[in-house]
Amino acid sequence: MAEAKKAYTRDMNYVPDRITRDARRPEHGPVAGELWPVEPGRYRLVAAAACPWANRSIIVRKLLGLEDVISLGMPGPVHDERSWTFDLDPGGRDPVLGIERLQEAYLKRLPDYSRGITVPAIVEESTGKLITNDFRWITHDLFHEWKEFHREDAPDLWPVRLREEMDEVMERIFTEVNNGVYRCGFAGSQDAYDEAYDRLFTALDWLEERLTDQRYLMGEAITEADVRLFTTLARFDAVYHGHFKCNRQTLAELPALWGYARDLFQTPGFGETIDFDQIKRHYYVVHTTINPTQIVPKGPDPGAWLTPSNRG
Amino acid sequence: MAEAKKAYTRDMNYVPDRITRDARRPEHGPVAGELWPVEPGRYRLVAAAACPWANRSIIVRKLLGLEDVISLGMPGPVHDERSWTFDLDPGGRDPVLGIERLQEAYLKRLPDYSRGITVPAIVEESTGKLITNDFRWITHDLFHEWKEFHREDAPDLWPVRLREEMDEVMERIFTEVNNGVYRCGFAGSQDAYDEAYDRLFTALDWLEERLTDQRYLMGEAITEADVRLFTTLARFDAVYHGHFKCNRQTLAELPALWGYARDLFQTPGFGETIDFDQIKRHYYVVHTTINPTQIVPKGPDPGAWLTPSNRG
Repeated sequence: MAEAKKAYTRDMNYVPDRITRDARRPEHGPVAGELWPVEPGRYRLVAAAACPWANRSIIVRKLLGLEDVISLGMPGPVHDERSWTFDLDPGGRDPVLGIERLQEAYLKRLPDYSRGITVPAIVEESTGKLITNDFRWITHDLFHEWKEFHREDAPDLWPVRLREEMDEVMERIFTEVNNGVYRCGFAGSQDAYDEAYDRLFTALDWLEERLTDQRYLMGEAITEADVRLFTTLARFDAVYHGHFKCNRQTLAELPALWGYARDLFQTPGFGETIDFDQIKRHYYVVHTTINPTQIVPKGPDPGAWLTPSNRG
Repeated sequence: MAEAKKAYTRDMNYVPDRITRDARRPEHGPVAGELWPVEPGRYRLVAAAACPWANRSIIVRKLLGLEDVISLGMPGPVHDERSWTFDLDPGGRDPVLGIERLQEAYLKRLPDYSRGITVPAIVEESTGKLITNDFRWITHDLFHEWKEFHREDAPDLWPVRLREEMDEVMERIFTEVNNGVYRCGFAGSQDAYDEAYDRLFTALDWLEERLTDQRYLMGEAITEADVRLFTTLARFDAVYHGHFKCNRQTLAELPALWGYARDLFQTPGFGETIDFDQIKRHYYVVHTTINPTQIVPKGPDPGAWLTPSNRG
């Protein structure tokens, strides 16, 4: 059915290793690969500012105060078919890993690797090998396994009492919103697009209602669920509205979501990770099947993100 | 300079005949072609609902009450490289002219015609020959030359005392707005686009200010200048904002322009000529160099056009 309609489906095969305290078996999630021990200074998070999946890990690393414990490498916004590249770094090489393309870390680990080169990726600094690119568990483990190294007043991004409801909320946000915008943009037929559009805005209507009555997704405190929704909302008017044709409304026309998104944007750890120029360049230059001219729109005015949200 | 930047330039070579009272020499504008006499029932206006240049003539014909005097043929929204076609009509033929493609009327008049087949076009019903496709003078002459056949309470679309200022305003609207959105959308380079975007929004800022203090462009009554601005504004959020990357703001984010546009939309003669489905299909399906997937966005919600403008 989905095939006939040429619906977009995301390749969800990731390198599934986990980094855990003392390489213990984690409490949550699959152990389909190897286990690596938490160790300050051993790993490098590679995350492009442009990419929403990578953006999650950049925000969580900041919120938890792990900047001195896990280093950060940042590829530029534009990559070719083969790989994200470190074109923003001096000499076009990541200063710690010494590589030009993230692909090199993938191939060091898996010489025959032929799938997509994705961010976020965690690489072992000493060997230059990819440890994991499974974004679903990277931020989870930054919270649960690296607790010993969190800053003192780090937020409780995964409150135990909310875990069950939060997993449901995050699952819906993932399938309907985070991935929902891609389903619109990469639809292979009008039917597939129409269906994707309806699914996306059904979910945004649900979120608009949920956020009308409460400040954050799970109540009065920021959780991982907010991080995961924020990275899509931050890109909505700049990219998804026009480039992916998610245009029933702009984000700015959904009052609760827009207030919520600005509230987070103005919270330390969020807004400073958003680089609208890189975000726009990434989508508009890389997706030549959607935007063959590769011209990058000048709008919208990002100043609106700094207007008061009045949700405090 | 413009060439080096691959800026878009509109082909302004039209078949320049004029239809005037008793085929007299008109008071205004060039006489570069033949003169034809005003005569009820003799001519057919061919105008696609999708096209902003054609939309002008549909609105003016209605405002002046010329529906029974000049008939209207309407090609569908999607045309191929050769011509607009009458694919919405029974059997795919215009019921009066009996042709499938507007191109046939062009070739009857000019057998070697090889330029674009554009709307609006005025065709002589008896011979099926194109008389003129010069949109700049078609609406002008509907007003000035067909006065005898206007409805009794037809608006004064070209007040004599405002003529000079109105010509200036309309010229700026033409080069900066009507054509300005195309200059953004068809820019052949990032530089050409960036420049076109700045020009467009400079003009929209000027209009926003002008319309903050007065209801219509020339004061307290509707003129031809309003018709010409309206046809671009009606397409702004549906097409130009995303497809042509005119995205500093949506129209709905420019308070005076948005109130003004809704005020006109809700005025008899304007809103009923706007078919958002045809408009979106036209741009998104025809321009394969900009939208190769030919997928047509579902949004934005057109219901917003019916909200009160509070400018009355």
